[in-house]
Amino acid sequence: MEQKVVQPSSLQKAIEQFKLLDEKITHYSSILGLADWDQKVMAPKKGRNVFAKATGTLRTEIFQLSVSPEMGHLLETLTLENHYSQLDQATRAKVREYKRYYQKSKAIPADLFKEYSILTAQANDAWEEARENNDFAGYLPFLEKIIDYKRQFAKIYGYNEHPYDALLDEFEPGLTVKRLDPLFAKLRESSVQLLERIRKNGQPTKVKVFDQSFEIEKQKAFNRFILPLIGFDMQAGRLDETVHPFAQTVNIGDVRLTTRYLEKNVRSALFGTIHEAGHGIYEQHVNPNYEETVLQSGASFGIHESQSRFLENMIGRSREFWHFFCPKLKEYFPEQLKDVTVEEFYRAVNTVQPSLIRVEADELTYNLHIMLRYEIEKALIGGEIEARDLPAIWNQKMMDYLGISPGTDTEGVLQDVHWSFGGIGYFPSYSLGNLYAAQILRAIQKDIPDLYSNIEKGKFKIIQEWLKENIHQYGKLYTPNELIVKVTGEELNADYLIDYLEKKYTEVYCL
Amino acid sequence: MEQKVVQPSSLQKAIEQFKLLDEKITHYSSILGLADWDQKVMAPKKGRNVFAKATGTLRTEIFQLSVSPEMGHLLETLTLENHYSQLDQATRAKVREYKRYYQKSKAIPADLFKEYSILTAQANDAWEEARENNDFAGYLPFLEKIIDYKRQFAKIYGYNEHPYDALLDEFEPGLTVKRLDPLFAKLRESSVQLLERIRKNGQPTKVKVFDQSFEIEKQKAFNRFILPLIGFDMQAGRLDETVHPFAQTVNIGDVRLTTRYLEKNVRSALFGTIHEAGHGIYEQHVNPNYEETVLQSGASFGIHESQSRFLENMIGRSREFWHFFCPKLKEYFPEQLKDVTVEEFYRAVNTVQPSLIRVEADELTYNLHIMLRYEIEKALIGGEIEARDLPAIWNQKMMDYLGISPGTDTEGVLQDVHWSFGGIGYFPSYSLGNLYAAQILRAIQKDIPDLYSNIEKGKFKIIQEWLKENIHQYGKLYTPNELIVKVTGEELNADYLIDYLEKKYTEVYCL
Repeated sequence: MEQKVVQPSSLQKAIEQFKLLDEKITHYSSILGLADWDQKVMAPKKGRNVFAKATGTLRTEIFQLSVSPEMGHLLETLTLENHYSQLDQATRAKVREYKRYYQKSKAIPADLFKEYSILTAQANDAWEEARENNDFAGYLPFLEKIIDYKRQFAKIYGYNEHPYDALLDEFEPGLTVKRLDPLFAKLRESSVQLLERIRKNGQPTKVKVFDQSFEIEKQKAFNRFILPLIGFDMQAGRLDETVHPFAQTVNIGDVRLTTRYLEKNVRSALFGTIHEAGHGIYEQHVNPNYEETVLQSGASFGIHESQSRFLENMIGRSREFWHFFCPKLKEYFPEQLKDVTVEEFYRAVNTVQPSLIRVEADELTYNLHIMLRYEIEKALIGGEIEARDLPAIWNQKMMDYLGISPGTDTEGVLQDVHWSFGGIGYFPSYSLGNLYAAQILRAIQKDIPDLYSNIEKGKFKIIQEWLKENIHQYGKLYTPNELIVKVTGEELNADYLIDYLEKKYTEVYCL
Repeated sequence: MEQKVVQPSSLQKAIEQFKLLDEKITHYSSILGLADWDQKVMAPKKGRNVFAKATGTLRTEIFQLSVSPEMGHLLETLTLENHYSQLDQATRAKVREYKRYYQKSKAIPADLFKEYSILTAQANDAWEEARENNDFAGYLPFLEKIIDYKRQFAKIYGYNEHPYDALLDEFEPGLTVKRLDPLFAKLRESSVQLLERIRKNGQPTKVKVFDQSFEIEKQKAFNRFILPLIGFDMQAGRLDETVHPFAQTVNIGDVRLTTRYLEKNVRSALFGTIHEAGHGIYEQHVNPNYEETVLQSGASFGIHESQSRFLENMIGRSREFWHFFCPKLKEYFPEQLKDVTVEEFYRAVNTVQPSLIRVEADELTYNLHIMLRYEIEKALIGGEIEARDLPAIWNQKMMDYLGISPGTDTEGVLQDVHWSFGGIGYFPSYSLGNLYAAQILRAIQKDIPDLYSNIEKGKFKIIQEWLKENIHQYGKLYTPNELIVKVTGEELNADYLIDYLEKKYTEVYCL
């Protein structure tokens, strides 16, 4: 077949059509984002099943637009050599994003996609119920179907070495098992060693302060108090409650966070809120020129997670953060906190303690929770294990890595929402986020040497401005790899996190 | 052109395609319903403008599907004489609904529709702000544009006598100025006379009980307490707060009500909630077989309003209702209500008092508020007056009909949301609702002679079952005229409401 030669005027037309198609897809995605949030946070029970069919219809429409012959033709036209060279940077990035999706997904039949998206919408309810009732068997049929779909998708997407690569790429473009295994191995080895040293030689922290009741209404007020101070714009967002905290963007001016309040665990909502705020601030800071385009959200799941983990841990679990916020927290809970010093409080929020629930894990053991999930997913998609085996495998791995094992599936294999929405390949993003975050911290400290003394004074603006300037504003303009190189001068390197954890815990535990 | 002859197999195919198209349109409408609710109730301020563009895109898609060549062809195929006779009753009703819309709207260019739908989404914010700041001038440019669009639409839709007929038909299919004028004239005449008699000879009610503060948190609790008792299923719905109360259906299992709490006016939320519950229960009771089809909502705006006005007034302002609920309300507000008897309370909630705000008007003067709006709309669409003249005209008509005039536009021309979303032709539905409701009350009392003694015992189930059986379950299966004839044996007749008001106020005011 001859290569089509498109005249400049047709190039202009293709750019214009591509812009409209991108806008339509982004508009629909924005509405779906809101609908997904609503079904988790607001919707009454009886309407959800039928509504899942409605969102399935819209999701299928987005899918069909993204793999349509029109999209194929536009991508082909825009990537002709003499055309591509004339595109501006943003249009090139948009082409890159749609091309990646188009090439992977065009072979998926629309009916298959629709069945899958209805299934995942309904599986969320099934998961919630199963989690509430410790009923893995009730959830199993959904999970089996989802895994079956994901195995099919991996084949259709294609991969070079491991079928799991096909799924990883959805969350972190370009990432493979081959690249991830050594990064994780290095981190695991050093984490296990450090954990061992803490166990043996660590000075115990005074964690008893958290074994008290903290009134939920006051927790709510405190969470609302800190959000704007750390940089989240409440006029461009909300904070609500869900079983499983998350952040959902509707658009740059509407970013919604959720958290979970537990009377017996004040840390849960606190660090959950700070974590989700990290995601939310990222999205609020994207260049408004990218609004209503595919570039309007973060670079990848890993980079996104780096922003939430950075805010939660490197800022939110720093000594200076609590020098500023501990006196304020005491105003809300004078009784509970009357005997604790800032230094004790700081050490207490950095307590290392192998535990059952990932979202409540400390900075060090957190990555071990991720490795467990990563290995399970890899084996599931590789066909080495089946969904029905998961509770036993989960409990065994917990014992191997953390030395504890859950008494119920609710505290074990049922604790995370991700599989219910088909997010297989998602979990590694969390540890990638930690790795990116430590590398970014080093870069910020070069530009702002007094970073932590700003935090101590409650001056978060200078940090958020740096993140906006260097990371947030770009949205999806750069690939994650391009972005980390641009920001830090090198590719992802596990040493920064290993070094950060080593220093932090040596000091916290007086090793 | 020859008439196409379609074989039975193609008829089956057309039915199947029509079903899928209907489902897609209904799914999108369901999502839009949720999005509209969200933007009024939940969405943060900064995201709304851009989100209005997103919903504009989806609204335009629904419009385009509804007037598409595919729809035109399917409607043509299904209405061929030898085909139509083979359709079941529900499919015929669906064809009727889509045909009505198709014939009116197919001449509207998609671009015009899209501009209009973005405008109305943004006008809602402008109206809210104007209302808050008593700033008619700030709202005027939006209102002018909306009226301009509506005049254009009236021309495109077409009409026989009055351009306003084209808009009325959107809310009450088949209704015209010619039919409405005499109904309203008769009602106006009798209302004005009755009002005059009350003014001259009425025994004053003890309305002072309402001149007290009622804690908003307790009001909320009481409103949540009564909703399920009067028949609203809280597992299939929500109750939230907005400036302007409304009911929004997402689907049969997800019907959302809003109300407005005022500390100094306990009646506002109370009767607002009962009113919206009337709408909500209607939608919750629709036959599940009609879910995901165009038939899944009420027969017309007038019939819908009959259900809300029936519950608010004929039930909620009855003596028997307060015999049951007044003791309960006293448990929430023992201080405020300690000196009031049930009889006094009943008379107080039926106080006739010309007032500024439609949604807080009593049953008698309410219709005069509607007539004022009806006359203004008729003249606006007829081109006799312009938007900028409205504050002056409004205030003059208030003086003429009710003998009072608002001090601010917030309490005058800016009080209603309807025009901001393009709902011109909507207001008459409220008085139609009152007319239908009184006629339906008579029919219920034939079947359930002890209707009011059931209410006195708090037995609402028997009434809701009757409404479900005779009205609600049908959704849009029947036209409003077919329905009222089926339920009451005759077409709409103003005498029932006139008679009802006469009897009620003669008794309340001891005339």
